[in-house]
Amino acid sequence: MDGDHLHAGTRARHDRVDAVLDDFFALAKRRAESVGWRYVDLWSVLERNSAGGKRFRPRMVFTVYDALGGADDEAVARVGAAFELLHTALIVHDDVIDRDFSRRGIPNVSGSYRDTATTAGIPTPAAEHRGMSAAVIAGDLALTGASRMLLGIGCADHVRTRLLDLLDEAIFVSAGGEMVDVEFSLSADLPTVDEILEMERAKTAVYSFEAPLQAGAVLAGAGEAVVTAVGDFGREVGVAYQVVDDLLGVFGTEEATGKTTRGDLREGKRTVLVAHAATTDEWFTIQPFIGKADLSEAEAEHVRGRLEVCGARAFAEGLVEQHARRALDVLDRPEVPESLREALTPVVQDVLERVR
Amino acid sequence: MDGDHLHAGTRARHDRVDAVLDDFFALAKRRAESVGWRYVDLWSVLERNSAGGKRFRPRMVFTVYDALGGADDEAVARVGAAFELLHTALIVHDDVIDRDFSRRGIPNVSGSYRDTATTAGIPTPAAEHRGMSAAVIAGDLALTGASRMLLGIGCADHVRTRLLDLLDEAIFVSAGGEMVDVEFSLSADLPTVDEILEMERAKTAVYSFEAPLQAGAVLAGAGEAVVTAVGDFGREVGVAYQVVDDLLGVFGTEEATGKTTRGDLREGKRTVLVAHAATTDEWFTIQPFIGKADLSEAEAEHVRGRLEVCGARAFAEGLVEQHARRALDVLDRPEVPESLREALTPVVQDVLERVR
Repeated sequence: MDGDHLHAGTRARHDRVDAVLDDFFALAKRRAESVGWRYVDLWSVLERNSAGGKRFRPRMVFTVYDALGGADDEAVARVGAAFELLHTALIVHDDVIDRDFSRRGIPNVSGSYRDTATTAGIPTPAAEHRGMSAAVIAGDLALTGASRMLLGIGCADHVRTRLLDLLDEAIFVSAGGEMVDVEFSLSADLPTVDEILEMERAKTAVYSFEAPLQAGAVLAGAGEAVVTAVGDFGREVGVAYQVVDDLLGVFGTEEATGKTTRGDLREGKRTVLVAHAATTDEWFTIQPFIGKADLSEAEAEHVRGRLEVCGARAFAEGLVEQHARRALDVLDRPEVPESLREALTPVVQDVLERVR
Repeated sequence: MDGDHLHAGTRARHDRVDAVLDDFFALAKRRAESVGWRYVDLWSVLERNSAGGKRFRPRMVFTVYDALGGADDEAVARVGAAFELLHTALIVHDDVIDRDFSRRGIPNVSGSYRDTATTAGIPTPAAEHRGMSAAVIAGDLALTGASRMLLGIGCADHVRTRLLDLLDEAIFVSAGGEMVDVEFSLSADLPTVDEILEMERAKTAVYSFEAPLQAGAVLAGAGEAVVTAVGDFGREVGVAYQVVDDLLGVFGTEEATGKTTRGDLREGKRTVLVAHAATTDEWFTIQPFIGKADLSEAEAEHVRGRLEVCGARAFAEGLVEQHARRALDVLDRPEVPESLREALTPVVQDVLERVR
C-alpha cells in the first residue's frame, strides 16, 4: 500500500465519520425542535464543539480495521463516530471540572453560553454558571449519543455487544481516571510516578488508544489473541503519548502544542516530571513554582532548567522510549499479522516524533 | 386482586429492584478497584445517593407490566432499576446545575465530597468545586449504568431495542427540559403557563411517567395501541403531578413535602402559579417577592394570599383536575384492558390526594 493510496483512504474514512456525525446532529436538532429552540441551540453549540477535531480516535479504529481487511465503510464510520462523541462528552465535562471556558483558543460549550449571557448583560458569576450548566447537559447528550451510535450499527449481535462492552469499559475507566485526577489536584501530597501513570492511562489512554484500537479489531472479526494484542499495544503507546504530553506541557513550543508552555506549571498539574522531581534534592528549588498562578517566563525557564538538572526530563523521555519500545514489541507477536504491524508502527513513530 | 395481595406483590417487586441495584453497585465497586480506592469511594457515595428512594419510576414500570400479565420477575426488575438509575443521574446533575449540596436534608454527592474536603481543611470554594466535580462524574456513571442495565435484559431483541429507544427518548427530552429550565431561570421575561407546562413535562414527566409506563407495556408484549395509551396517560398524569408540585411548593406543609414552603418563592422558581399571576393585575403586589432570597414567613403569607386572590391557585388546581380527568379518559379507551384501568386509576388518585 503506497503512501498516497493510504492517504486517500484515510481521507475517505474521515469524511465518512464526518458524514455520520452530520446526520447524527441533524437528526438531534430536528428532534430537539419539539422541546423548543433553546434546546436546538444547545445541540448546535455541541455540534460546533465536536467539529474540526483531528478525529484521532476514529483513526485508531480504522487503522486496525483496514489493516485486518475490514470492508464495511458504514459500520466502521459509526464506530469511529461513537468514539468521537465519547471524546466530545469527556472533554466537555472535563472542561466543567477544570473550569475552562475555552479549548485551543475557541470558546467551548461553557464559553459559548457564558459569552452570550455576558453580552446580554447577565453578571459574570451567573453567566459562568449558565455556561457550566449547559456544558453538563451537553456532555450528557454526547455520552448518550456515543452508545446510541454503536447500537445502530448493522453487524452481528455478538459484535455489537462486544463493541458496547468496550465503550462501557472506556467510559468506566475514564470516569475513574478523572476522579483520581480531581483528588490528586486537591491533595497536598504529591502522587508517585506510578500513580500518575495509572491515572493518565485511566483518564485518557484507555478511551483514546486501547478501546478504539480494540473496537477496530472486533469489528473486523479478529480473534481474541489479536484483540488482546492491539489492547496491549494501545496501553503502551497510550502511556507513551501521555508522558509526551507532560513533556510538551513544559518543554514544548507554543507553535507545536497550540497552548502556552507555562500552563501546566501554573496550574500545578500533577505530571510525571513533577512526580519524579519531587524524589530528588532539586525539589526545593522547583516546588515553590509549581502551581504559582502568576509564574513569569523567567521563572518558568528556571523550573525547566531544574527539571533537566534533576533528571526529570531525561527520566520522562526514557519512559516514552520504554513504552514505545514495548508497544513495538507487542507488534512482533506471532498473532499480529504483517499488515497490522505495518499499519500500527507509524502510530508509535508519530508519538515519538512529537518530542523530537 | 385484593389490597393485601397487591401490597405484597409490590413489595416483592421493590425488593427485586433493590437487589438488582445492589448487584450493579457491588460489581461496579469491584471493577473500580483496578482504578483505585478513590474511585471505589465515588461509587459508594453514588450508591448511597441511589438508595432509599421511593422507587417511584420502577413502580410505574411494574404497575403496567403486572396489569398486563407480565411474569418475568428479573426482566421487569432490571427495567425498573434502569429508570431508577436514570432518575439518580438526572437529580445528581440537576443538583450540580442548581448548586444544591443536599437533597431532602441529606448531603448529596456534591455535599458528601464538599463536606469531607472541608473537614480536611480545604477552603470552601475548592471544597465545593470538588463536590461538583465528583457529582458531574457520578451522574455520568449513573447515566451510562441505566443503558447498561437495559442492555443486559434477557428478552427478545426487538423488545430490548424498543426499551432502549424509550430510555433514549427520556434522556433526550429530560435534557431539553433541563436546558429550557436553566434558560427560564436566567431570563427576566416570565414564560407563559404553556411554556412552563411544556418545560415541566420535558424535564420530569416524560422520564417519570410516560417512559417507564410505556416500558412496562413494551416488556409485557402489549400492542402499539396500548403502548400509545399508557404514554398518553403518563403525559396527562405527569403534567398533573408537576402542577401539584408547583402548588405544594407554595401552599404545602413542610411535614407533607419535606421541604420549606418558602423555597420556590425565594428561588424565584418559574411555576404555573407565577406564570398565571403575571397575567393578572395582582402581579405588581406579588412580583417584588418572587426571587427575594430573604423572604420572611410574613411576606410568604402575603404572596400566598395574593396568589389566591388573583386566581392563580384556583387556576392551577383546575389544571390538575383537567389533566387528571384526561388521564382517566385515556383509561376508558377500548384498547385499555380492565386490569390496566384498575391498576392505573389509583395512580391518578394518588396525585389528586397530594393536594387535598
